[in-house]
Amino acid sequence: MYPQRFEDLISVLEKLPGVGNKTAQRYAFTLLEKNEEEIQRAIEALEGLKEIRKCRICGFLSDEDECPFCKDDTRNKATIMVVAYPQDAAAIEKTGSYKGSYHVLGGLISSSKGIYPEDIGIDKLLNRIDDSIKEVIVATSPTMDGEMTALYLDKVLKDKNVLVTRLAHGLPMGASLDYADDLTLIKALDNRRKIESE
Amino acid sequence: MYPQRFEDLISVLEKLPGVGNKTAQRYAFTLLEKNEEEIQRAIEALEGLKEIRKCRICGFLSDEDECPFCKDDTRNKATIMVVAYPQDAAAIEKTGSYKGSYHVLGGLISSSKGIYPEDIGIDKLLNRIDDSIKEVIVATSPTMDGEMTALYLDKVLKDKNVLVTRLAHGLPMGASLDYADDLTLIKALDNRRKIESE
Repeated sequence: MYPQRFEDLISVLEKLPGVGNKTAQRYAFTLLEKNEEEIQRAIEALEGLKEIRKCRICGFLSDEDECPFCKDDTRNKATIMVVAYPQDAAAIEKTGSYKGSYHVLGGLISSSKGIYPEDIGIDKLLNRIDDSIKEVIVATSPTMDGEMTALYLDKVLKDKNVLVTRLAHGLPMGASLDYADDLTLIKALDNRRKIESE
Repeated sequence: MYPQRFEDLISVLEKLPGVGNKTAQRYAFTLLEKNEEEIQRAIEALEGLKEIRKCRICGFLSDEDECPFCKDDTRNKATIMVVAYPQDAAAIEKTGSYKGSYHVLGGLISSSKGIYPEDIGIDKLLNRIDDSIKEVIVATSPTMDGEMTALYLDKVLKDKNVLVTRLAHGLPMGASLDYADDLTLIKALDNRRKIESE
């Protein structure tokens, strides 16, 4: 009963993750209230999507052949942090405490989803490993698929002369101990460290 | 750290109601996965927004001068249902049990938001009322602002030779009585009806 163009917009918005018909309508009505300039910005942003591709080297998003991380010569190229998705690299980067390079797999090995090592960027990672690489930090999420991927990476990287490390598991900062799940508590206990007093 | 065009898209999506940075990123990555054809559909849907305006008569959405409801001569034009937003008319229409015309105010009188009768389409409604109009059904939501608007409409329509009615309040169908709030129960009791057995 809405104009066809408006229904089209709703059905496009409905395809966003977790968005049902009601929310899509709300978004569409919000967009309808915007002035022409703002709509134009949205259109240009979508047009821009066509220019975005994966970095030739690490798989991070880029509008050039190589991403800013790979192009930056001040970064420590001897360390590669392996992440599942570009968002994960962005989260690490935001902390400001990592200055190495990245490798974005684009997914995780998953027996439930039928994703195998050859489906994600593992070959590309192995091709990057030469004598200049000293450390591979496996920064997959501590989920079933993340753990499986980490174990697989550890196995295939064994033959290479490179240190393979994994992000630490333990209590998240600021969290209450009695709200932590058992697995996290066990990991936190196993990985306990001597208190370093100055 | 994402390409500028991608950051632009995220900041456009962040302006949608209830969408924060995390959700906007998720939406942007979902859009990134779409093929060019789907992106094109989204662009066209946004382009189409520029063509959408308000129906000259009732204020519902239309891509022509008059909306489908006002143009439809089979509808009963002697009855006008007054709603706050186009979505409300759409909700009524979906039930299939109303065949009159609509009037979309575009808002509700609200002392808290500082919205006065002259800010919404009440003048336009009054101009529509002539001898051909027999009934005005006030279908604003049973909220504070909706009630205030209904009372105001009842007052200004008193001088006109027209029946003013209001959607019934009571227990929603399928709801459990003991979960209904007090006001709803009081309304349901006040408005009780004789059971009509066949």
